[in-house]
Amino acid sequence: MPKPALNTREKIVEAAAHLFYSEGIRAVSVDAVAAKSQLTKKTLYYHFASKDELIAAYLASRDQPTLQLYQKWFDETEGTVCDKVRGMFQRFAQVANSPEWRGCGFNRTAAELASTPGHPAVKAGATHKKRFEGWLTDIFERESISNARTSARQIIVLLDGAASIMLIHRDPAYVEAAGEVAANCIRT
Amino acid sequence: MPKPALNTREKIVEAAAHLFYSEGIRAVSVDAVAAKSQLTKKTLYYHFASKDELIAAYLASRDQPTLQLYQKWFDETEGTVCDKVRGMFQRFAQVANSPEWRGCGFNRTAAELASTPGHPAVKAGATHKKRFEGWLTDIFERESISNARTSARQIIVLLDGAASIMLIHRDPAYVEAAGEVAANCIRT
Repeated sequence: MPKPALNTREKIVEAAAHLFYSEGIRAVSVDAVAAKSQLTKKTLYYHFASKDELIAAYLASRDQPTLQLYQKWFDETEGTVCDKVRGMFQRFAQVANSPEWRGCGFNRTAAELASTPGHPAVKAGATHKKRFEGWLTDIFERESISNARTSARQIIVLLDGAASIMLIHRDPAYVEAAGEVAANCIRT
Repeated sequence: MPKPALNTREKIVEAAAHLFYSEGIRAVSVDAVAAKSQLTKKTLYYHFASKDELIAAYLASRDQPTLQLYQKWFDETEGTVCDKVRGMFQRFAQVANSPEWRGCGFNRTAAELASTPGHPAVKAGATHKKRFEGWLTDIFERESISNARTSARQIIVLLDGAASIMLIHRDPAYVEAAGEVAANCIRT
């Protein structure tokens, strides 16, 4: 099935997402996003009042696709909930081991915005991370995992830590080691 | 004892470290570093051929102070090696719970440099993280912890993950949860 045509707003967000993820939010100008969208800067500013709004829209647009990708990795792994968590890290290790992979866009954006904690993009990142945590908590509660909420938080920390250290060492052994700990966090 | 006077190079690195940590590496210009050092840009470029070199020098200058801080937190905690690891996370949670705290400078810099993996500052970050890992591995081996190297790596992932999620949620409960997992990683 062919993809439905994007409207102007979606076209801008798609171009922004590509550039911001590739180069970082400060390295990319609004001019560059307008050029990549093949739109004028005036049209861009008609849809987004500021670059800050555009950065927040970029992260909001990555919420569901990112969550769905991890859910797919989880669902596609055979076995117990422990196996599925470990499997999610293994699939992540494969993806992160490519030169095109440039870290977790949510964490990288928060890192660039460390001096403005209330920034709308940091809030969009927080919404995504809470949604991810909520998804894991629900699964763990359904599976009668003791301390479901804490386990979900610990797995979020391990995923974020694995993404951070991968950007430094580019060695998937750290992701695999994180996956082992994550699987051990879960006690039925 | 009064601090010994800094030489010109040290003065530049101190100013750069302050600005880069506060605002991020792309947000701060070489002009701003020169101004904060109360030196001309020409003098700055006499000591550092490029901004990239200056960023690498900033991270190299944070290696030993950062390591020594964690070693202090570890040493000052009473009890077993598990207690000491947990204590290190608790002290980290306290520090990270202040508005002045802006994440791990090594990880934030690697996040900003995600599109240039071989950058000298990413290498300086890798050197620091390996040194930290080596310190923990040595302790764990001395204490006859099984799988000392893997445990050290897992603790690095947990510290980096705790720092990343703190920048998003600003909630020390995540650091404490990470500390519990870290303590459980260690099996004598």
